[in-house]
Amino acid sequence: MAAPDPGLLSLNTATVRAQWTLPEIIAGCARHGIRGISPWRDQVAAAGLADTAKRIRDAGLAVTGLCRGGMFSATDREGRRAALDDNRRAVDEACELGARCLVLVVGGLPKDRGGRVASKDLIGAREMVRDGIGELLEHARSAGMPLAVEPLHPMYAADRACVNTLAHANALCDELCPKGEDGLGVAVDVYHVWWDPELKAGIERAGAANRLFAYHICDWLVPTTDLLNDRGMMGDGVIDLPLIRSWMEAAGYRGMHEVEIFSKNDWWKRDPDDVLTTCRHRHVERS
Amino acid sequence: MAAPDPGLLSLNTATVRAQWTLPEIIAGCARHGIRGISPWRDQVAAAGLADTAKRIRDAGLAVTGLCRGGMFSATDREGRRAALDDNRRAVDEACELGARCLVLVVGGLPKDRGGRVASKDLIGAREMVRDGIGELLEHARSAGMPLAVEPLHPMYAADRACVNTLAHANALCDELCPKGEDGLGVAVDVYHVWWDPELKAGIERAGAANRLFAYHICDWLVPTTDLLNDRGMMGDGVIDLPLIRSWMEAAGYRGMHEVEIFSKNDWWKRDPDDVLTTCRHRHVERS
Repeated sequence: MAAPDPGLLSLNTATVRAQWTLPEIIAGCARHGIRGISPWRDQVAAAGLADTAKRIRDAGLAVTGLCRGGMFSATDREGRRAALDDNRRAVDEACELGARCLVLVVGGLPKDRGGRVASKDLIGAREMVRDGIGELLEHARSAGMPLAVEPLHPMYAADRACVNTLAHANALCDELCPKGEDGLGVAVDVYHVWWDPELKAGIERAGAANRLFAYHICDWLVPTTDLLNDRGMMGDGVIDLPLIRSWMEAAGYRGMHEVEIFSKNDWWKRDPDDVLTTCRHRHVERS
Repeated sequence: MAAPDPGLLSLNTATVRAQWTLPEIIAGCARHGIRGISPWRDQVAAAGLADTAKRIRDAGLAVTGLCRGGMFSATDREGRRAALDDNRRAVDEACELGARCLVLVVGGLPKDRGGRVASKDLIGAREMVRDGIGELLEHARSAGMPLAVEPLHPMYAADRACVNTLAHANALCDELCPKGEDGLGVAVDVYHVWWDPELKAGIERAGAANRLFAYHICDWLVPTTDLLNDRGMMGDGVIDLPLIRSWMEAAGYRGMHEVEIFSKNDWWKRDPDDVLTTCRHRHVERS
């Protein structure tokens, strides 16, 4: 495998969210020669949408995605309606930011108002997710904003996303866009899918349908000490990143490589300029 | 769903391993009217194989499985040979205990002698696992001991088992026993597979081939605070246990329901008699 083009590196802002505000992250990307960014909605809200859009434009950054829409499942009709309204706003924000796509973390089992899982009906939750994406798709299409379904690791099936394989995400795309219409695709995050024996086939299938909208990289650490916030820097774990990148490229993906690392006890405690320097090196050398 | 027959409850000895020795666990099962047991090899070694076999016979317990064989992947030929030798001994021990099957946790990425993951070649690891099971199968068949491949949750793909879906386990069985020969099947542990959208299909496929050798129950807690040792008691988590049991029964499974709970901060700290009482109640009422 040839090393990746350094110009394809993008930074998911979660990677340094503990240290920097969004304006600081945008400035950091510019300073380090990182050409893409993928911000989170709470950070955008805190910094202001219009101001953020301007800063990103002025810095010349591509927006490889907005994190995140989704969370479609809810215990009642009102909850599902509220989720849909919020998702429509997310689509509009993604448009204003000029994002490549709105990333969808689709939601797990329905939760009550206290945030606790209130149902064991996983099949029903998956139906809610399908219906929610279907409803959002109308607004997203009219706004011209692609939706990227991100399959999450099965360990998040209950509380974050009940779409846990690329095969399932591909099937959702097929069901909701049976004629191969534009506007619905997938985000491939190595952390979530690296273990899947069907990963290569799933990437090929998504690529053949022009549905590879985003590619997220980091690493799986052994041991992993926290289900949420113990992701590794590329090269520090066990994922064969060049191999998965080769599958993405063979399937026609030409987009950026977005580094997304949640790391409570390591990277979130380091100097953020050092983190970005390391991202740049590891992107070229280890992914 | 009708409640399960209380006589189908079996106890995986890991559930109270922090509190009791194996002889104490055997006596506890007898005292609580639990009719099945599934011991771990380290406990059997500590208590003595012949003595354990006698105690289990005297207590009239069915042995729903021996935990565990597997761990086939290794960095070199010598390591793979040592693993195979150890697996043959596990088969013999399972025979002496009169176990229903030897449960295989197949191993993850190859590790070095220090126990650290030494390769990122997941595809290669899966080939080693296939070859290892294939080699062990000869000895197991001549000994008359069924081998049960247990797909483990994808979060264990790197360090414990690189077979992470029932579909993959079924495919291994098909590949190694193309004519539907006896002696190779699967262990379905809800903790590992509950999230899988293809679970029902996988159970049906295994059942149609008479490959459902074991059924393990517990629950998935939200939040889960530890990747290894934070399993829940049936009813305390989010798994729809009656639904999965209905799939097992519809697929022809008539074996026991083995409770296997690793719980560092909860069940391992409780009075073990209370744990067994709770297992009995929750088995009937919540699974």
